[in-house]
Amino acid sequence: MNTNSERITLAHGNGGELTRDLIEHVFAKHLHNEWLDTHHDAARLPWSNQGELMMTTDSFTVEPLIFPGGDIGSLAVHGTVNDLAVAGARPRYLSLNAIIEEGLPVATLEHIVKSLGRACQECGVAVVTGDTKVVRQGQGGGLYLATTGIGEKIPALNLSMDAIEPGDALLVTGTVGDHGAAVLLAREQFGLSGDLRSDSASVLSATQALTGIPGLKFMRDPTRGGLATVLHEIARHRQLSPRVAQTQIPIRPQVRAISEILGFDPLYLACEGRVLAVINPASVAAALAALNAAGYPDSRQIGTVEPGRPWVVLTTELGGERLLEPLLGDPLPRIC
Amino acid sequence: MNTNSERITLAHGNGGELTRDLIEHVFAKHLHNEWLDTHHDAARLPWSNQGELMMTTDSFTVEPLIFPGGDIGSLAVHGTVNDLAVAGARPRYLSLNAIIEEGLPVATLEHIVKSLGRACQECGVAVVTGDTKVVRQGQGGGLYLATTGIGEKIPALNLSMDAIEPGDALLVTGTVGDHGAAVLLAREQFGLSGDLRSDSASVLSATQALTGIPGLKFMRDPTRGGLATVLHEIARHRQLSPRVAQTQIPIRPQVRAISEILGFDPLYLACEGRVLAVINPASVAAALAALNAAGYPDSRQIGTVEPGRPWVVLTTELGGERLLEPLLGDPLPRIC
Repeated sequence: MNTNSERITLAHGNGGELTRDLIEHVFAKHLHNEWLDTHHDAARLPWSNQGELMMTTDSFTVEPLIFPGGDIGSLAVHGTVNDLAVAGARPRYLSLNAIIEEGLPVATLEHIVKSLGRACQECGVAVVTGDTKVVRQGQGGGLYLATTGIGEKIPALNLSMDAIEPGDALLVTGTVGDHGAAVLLAREQFGLSGDLRSDSASVLSATQALTGIPGLKFMRDPTRGGLATVLHEIARHRQLSPRVAQTQIPIRPQVRAISEILGFDPLYLACEGRVLAVINPASVAAALAALNAAGYPDSRQIGTVEPGRPWVVLTTELGGERLLEPLLGDPLPRIC
Repeated sequence: MNTNSERITLAHGNGGELTRDLIEHVFAKHLHNEWLDTHHDAARLPWSNQGELMMTTDSFTVEPLIFPGGDIGSLAVHGTVNDLAVAGARPRYLSLNAIIEEGLPVATLEHIVKSLGRACQECGVAVVTGDTKVVRQGQGGGLYLATTGIGEKIPALNLSMDAIEPGDALLVTGTVGDHGAAVLLAREQFGLSGDLRSDSASVLSATQALTGIPGLKFMRDPTRGGLATVLHEIARHRQLSPRVAQTQIPIRPQVRAISEILGFDPLYLACEGRVLAVINPASVAAALAALNAAGYPDSRQIGTVEPGRPWVVLTTELGGERLLEPLLGDPLPRIC
């Protein structure tokens, strides 16, 4: 990055190429240490004489604060719990920061905190420490949250993007793009009605179902930047070519429709309750059976990791192929 | 709180009475669990079969982002490290959230991240996980940070506000109000010149010096709300009367002068590199000698915890007495 004249743009926050640039060339450059790994959602840390702990963090700036299917409070808990779950940890404790804009109705704040508390109970985690700051009207977006989660690493489970090999299968645990589409719809007031809801939820049952399956290599919740952006991270990091089939990727008709109207591709829209899993092909049937039994009926193998150039390839309904580009321009601020 | 009609005001963020109300009646009410304790800066958590970990969190919204003596980056590290240090823990790992306002010069961000990295090295901690979000111009204050720190509890050290008894001595490790006064001065452009600098620094050497002293009961870094607000927390929690002597409290002449001009009391201004320690009176001489040897020449006994009504009493230079009121109105937004 040319750090002399450049200014931060909304696209630096979209989870795609510019976000990666910013993280690598500004943050990781000055903060590097043996535990900081920008390729994984949670850090794996030695702790005392036995065991390891895992730590993850996220900030939440979603607008509107309350949307169909959730709110910034439940979203924060699910986001943090899910980052630990896909990293192979049992979530335990959360910290909570609330940056509140002057003028926010206390009743709105309380609604959100209550929802956050309920989500904690459902996920079996506890907020053990917190901080609040109030900023002047016009210096915040109503409410921003930041949560950090720590969990116990499950000893038998050693998941890593490094383990992904050619031939591995790509699975998703449900429809993609629901959260992004629901938030855009709630925000933009198109006068469209519908039953579109965010998929914001804990993925703990899904990751627990997958934990017992041999040959599980890697899991990730495809949030900001969507499914396509996670596939790009795999492509770049492993120098392999994830290839997915359009007909296999579960997308709700409403998500497809709203995406067409707004000009977005659902493969780049955030999910907040889905897992992309990479698994040995011999275990696909067992994994899908376990996910079905755990209550994920839309689970599907969507493709395979192929050798070749680090491109993400979509095979279309008509049998053609097209490259899924890395996410560059679309800023989509405050989607999560 | 009347949560039906009320809106968040700047005074909800000043660290005083309204902040306490907000935390107790909105946050703690819905998030209560066995580990969340609003009276301490860090939570003490069981971890695996042996040992305990401590966890703390803070958000930082200081304006300006860079001020004499520090910046929001070093402040975030010091604030988090200090909360662990005064709670009796060895700080180890940090998480970092950056909520960046569109338009922030990348060079400013890099200056701050570099300073944050340097502060981590000085304190022996590592940022192991992070997240960045970008919000639209007009929805942020340039840059907000949130950091969570985890540390190992020092087994021999069991500090708690609950241990404070009548007769205990109150010590501070340096001049008070420097950070608050320096930030106000930097912000307000009074055309005043001076060498006033924030005291933002790690207090690890001070807490290490005090750790060996028998009879150490409690430590706290008096940040937002200042020394007076910590004394009020002790008064309320223990139903005792902290009594401090105006002539014993070290305050820089510049801090006194700028406070008089702006109409603030330095006892309510934030420190970001000081410790208030409560200790058995028999150990005061040993504690002050240890602090002096550790490089804290301005350490002083400033008073005593007395029995009686839970009032904070200041004995004045002329031998009179006045009550230090709980912090109510002064909003002082974005001081840390």
